[in-house]
Amino acid sequence: MLKLYYAPRTCSLATHIALEDVGADYSTVRISFAANQQQSPDYLKINPKGRVPALVTDRGILTETPAMLAFVAQSFPAAQLAPLDDPFAFAEVQAFNSYLCSTLHIAHAHRMRGHRWVDAEDAAAIAAMQRKVPQSVTAGFEQVEHDMFKGPWVMGERYTICDPYLFTLAQWLEADGVDLARIPKVVDHRRRMSERPNVKKAIAQEFAP
Amino acid sequence: MLKLYYAPRTCSLATHIALEDVGADYSTVRISFAANQQQSPDYLKINPKGRVPALVTDRGILTETPAMLAFVAQSFPAAQLAPLDDPFAFAEVQAFNSYLCSTLHIAHAHRMRGHRWVDAEDAAAIAAMQRKVPQSVTAGFEQVEHDMFKGPWVMGERYTICDPYLFTLAQWLEADGVDLARIPKVVDHRRRMSERPNVKKAIAQEFAP
Repeated sequence: MLKLYYAPRTCSLATHIALEDVGADYSTVRISFAANQQQSPDYLKINPKGRVPALVTDRGILTETPAMLAFVAQSFPAAQLAPLDDPFAFAEVQAFNSYLCSTLHIAHAHRMRGHRWVDAEDAAAIAAMQRKVPQSVTAGFEQVEHDMFKGPWVMGERYTICDPYLFTLAQWLEADGVDLARIPKVVDHRRRMSERPNVKKAIAQEFAP
Repeated sequence: MLKLYYAPRTCSLATHIALEDVGADYSTVRISFAANQQQSPDYLKINPKGRVPALVTDRGILTETPAMLAFVAQSFPAAQLAPLDDPFAFAEVQAFNSYLCSTLHIAHAHRMRGHRWVDAEDAAAIAAMQRKVPQSVTAGFEQVEHDMFKGPWVMGERYTICDPYLFTLAQWLEADGVDLARIPKVVDHRRRMSERPNVKKAIAQEFAP
């Protein structure tokens, strides 16, 4: 059985939704960032990188959201969450998810995790990074809005593993200071995603007592 | 025919090597960063993100190195550059490449591209980022060395699309201020990769007049 290590309000929600979408038999384990549990010796045995998400499978442990999403799609082909038999279309899915991971999520991370890229004691540099976040995250979502999003779903008519990932990063729009009026398609996508039963179920589970 | 847009000394080298590895029929177009050609109107029609690499195919244009590498492997299955029929093993390949893209390359990028994450005029913040690069890039490569690299190739006995990507990022070790003594497996891998004819050919082509 699959086991997902997650933390609320993180990118682990994307894989959580995908597991619901494919009807997987899985369990979840919540990691407390407040207690710095992601850096505990026990969790570092699960994921030496000290981050969420991590997915325990009967073959071993996987990390990195784009890889985990593709794994879920490939392991449950009947759910058709990715164009598995078309290398070009599959690469488009992967390119989108890679952009979210390495550009959009990274821009966002400079608000809360600036210590990864400057000395943690350098308050001025940390603040400089935080000031840039509204601009850099907005630019990233505008790129999605204008150059990537096909509609009604990210890749067009068919819902794919791109949709839960975009939805997950769009949870942070307001806190990142993004002007929602500039990205109406992304905001509408977020609203439609939030109404899906699988999405509601995953979110409810993450915030359950 | 495939056409790769690249710039010397960038991550486009990974896909360039992979195209050689599979024996693809392809051409290349060099983009001059010195002339800011990646932001020219003509190039923005190829890649609206204004970055390299981009791969023109007869189906459309692909970007993002992890997606492009998987596309090359899937389009030329006879070359066996990835475990295409094993979702878990394929996900391990993708997780490694995603880590390189979203953690290691990003740490490195704070040396030259700090303006993405702070105001370009903020010289103190730009310098603060640059000071952290030796530490953050070293930490990333140590994670590869200790927790990911199986040997003799990244994924073990079989050479995969992870190898040209790791080799490409390892081109920047000295300039990033990494202590090579801390990552002997990565350094040995770089040396062995540099002796491969396909690698020599791709590099020679990128630097040809």
